[in-house]
Amino acid sequence: MLVLTILGNNSAIPAFGRHPTAQVLQTDNDSFLIDCGEGTQTQLTKYKIRRSKITAIFISHLHGDHYFGLIGLITSMSLLGRTQPLNIYGPTALEQIINLQLSVADTTLSFPISFYSLTEEKVIFDNNKITIECFRVQHRIECWGFLFNEKKKPRKVDADRARSYEIPEAYFGKLQQGEDYVTKRGTIIPNVEVTVAATKAKRYAYCADTIFDKDLVPKIKEVDVLYHEATYLKDLEERAASRYHSTTHQAATIAKLGDVKKLIIGHFSSKYETVDDFLKEAKEVFENTELGLEGICYRI
Amino acid sequence: MLVLTILGNNSAIPAFGRHPTAQVLQTDNDSFLIDCGEGTQTQLTKYKIRRSKITAIFISHLHGDHYFGLIGLITSMSLLGRTQPLNIYGPTALEQIINLQLSVADTTLSFPISFYSLTEEKVIFDNNKITIECFRVQHRIECWGFLFNEKKKPRKVDADRARSYEIPEAYFGKLQQGEDYVTKRGTIIPNVEVTVAATKAKRYAYCADTIFDKDLVPKIKEVDVLYHEATYLKDLEERAASRYHSTTHQAATIAKLGDVKKLIIGHFSSKYETVDDFLKEAKEVFENTELGLEGICYRI
Repeated sequence: MLVLTILGNNSAIPAFGRHPTAQVLQTDNDSFLIDCGEGTQTQLTKYKIRRSKITAIFISHLHGDHYFGLIGLITSMSLLGRTQPLNIYGPTALEQIINLQLSVADTTLSFPISFYSLTEEKVIFDNNKITIECFRVQHRIECWGFLFNEKKKPRKVDADRARSYEIPEAYFGKLQQGEDYVTKRGTIIPNVEVTVAATKAKRYAYCADTIFDKDLVPKIKEVDVLYHEATYLKDLEERAASRYHSTTHQAATIAKLGDVKKLIIGHFSSKYETVDDFLKEAKEVFENTELGLEGICYRI
Repeated sequence: MLVLTILGNNSAIPAFGRHPTAQVLQTDNDSFLIDCGEGTQTQLTKYKIRRSKITAIFISHLHGDHYFGLIGLITSMSLLGRTQPLNIYGPTALEQIINLQLSVADTTLSFPISFYSLTEEKVIFDNNKITIECFRVQHRIECWGFLFNEKKKPRKVDADRARSYEIPEAYFGKLQQGEDYVTKRGTIIPNVEVTVAATKAKRYAYCADTIFDKDLVPKIKEVDVLYHEATYLKDLEERAASRYHSTTHQAATIAKLGDVKKLIIGHFSSKYETVDDFLKEAKEVFENTELGLEGICYRI
């Protein structure tokens, strides 16, 4: 299972209690921070997400509402004595910005940071649980989306059934890898008889800030959850295009064309005091839409 | 009158609902922002201080808890369409940091910024209401304090009394400048007969982050209000010194030696959940101490 927590769902200027963009995606092992607007460290505290669990940070682009909180978070991690390494993936200039600010403060961090420049669409992270790919999205400046692919999980051994066939526990590892069992008498016990399928591997796509762009569709095809920005209501399609953003209907159209299971929308413009209309409008095009509300955990 | 509003009173890491350092000092005409930790723009909104009224920003030093909120505030001012110029006073590298971040975002601000590098102790701001001086304080990196001096105000004409002496209104401007009035018959009406003294010009000193340093005393001598950091309680004097910070007793000692009228303390370490003991301890040395509490307006 992946668990997505929205820490900030507003665009550009903090407003009406809404914060700039930040999300945390958690696996059994890792917390991945996706974008890091100003105040993210405070939001992490508020929603009880441990900073120490964050092993990698993904920054989509260098507009401030997506990264101004990063230097504060890093500094606090160091003041709290973090020692484990931190990986940061983002546009090339990010490293210079962070290092300049550490340098003028005469600060040496208590932990090592590795910066990875995003330069082409490819797998940028791979461990035993998940792979993460970056893909280009169209915005006013260089901007990246991220696709999180859980790895296929092994079948689970049904220990009671396996024992009823007198399969020794030493063989359970092989059962998990899908092998059948052959008894001393030569009888084949098919793997499916003594194992159960694990939960399906899940996929989450994060589409950052983007203009309405059908080229996204193959990149996010059939994911379990798609996060797509919806900065404006549908009547402001022209303004959305001029600012390289999307409307409710446009976000929902990408979800529909991509045949995704669920759409989450966010990055609401500061001009809107409430966001209920965003949900109503998106549902007109794609029924299984949810608002990306701060503090809510979405189980993927 | 000067009005001081504390927006953040915590050191280093935001904790227990306390924010990093930021203050606003307001005159009749201007709002001066003093330091600008992460989240300052949100605190301004919370306490109903209009961003558009801020004409100048003073950054004491380049530790993040004193300036990480600046780039976000500037960006938001621009998104809100500000046109009036903004003056920023701070260490030299600040301009490079801000300009780098604007540059990577391909952002041209809607208003002009003038950066003023602090390089020597002198008057850095002067208008018809106030002069502002910077002075060096001792911290781990280059760090500046600021002294705000209200200008002496002209006496006020007591219009009823002036009319009772048949002084024409056209002469009121000269009365305000301190001149006596001579009647047609040659009788001298002394200025003090028909004017009243204005409220006294006030002085506020902001001592940023500083180690206990008696050289500060002549710089803040007899101000109406002294803000002096008190990061630690008195038992942590050694830790305070090693980190170039001060304790409650040390802040209060500077206030006492400086013969100031009132002391406000802040920059409380994140290790303390409550700050009541800070007040108790400081008062042991200097009775007229107040805690710098967020959102409170101190009338100077």
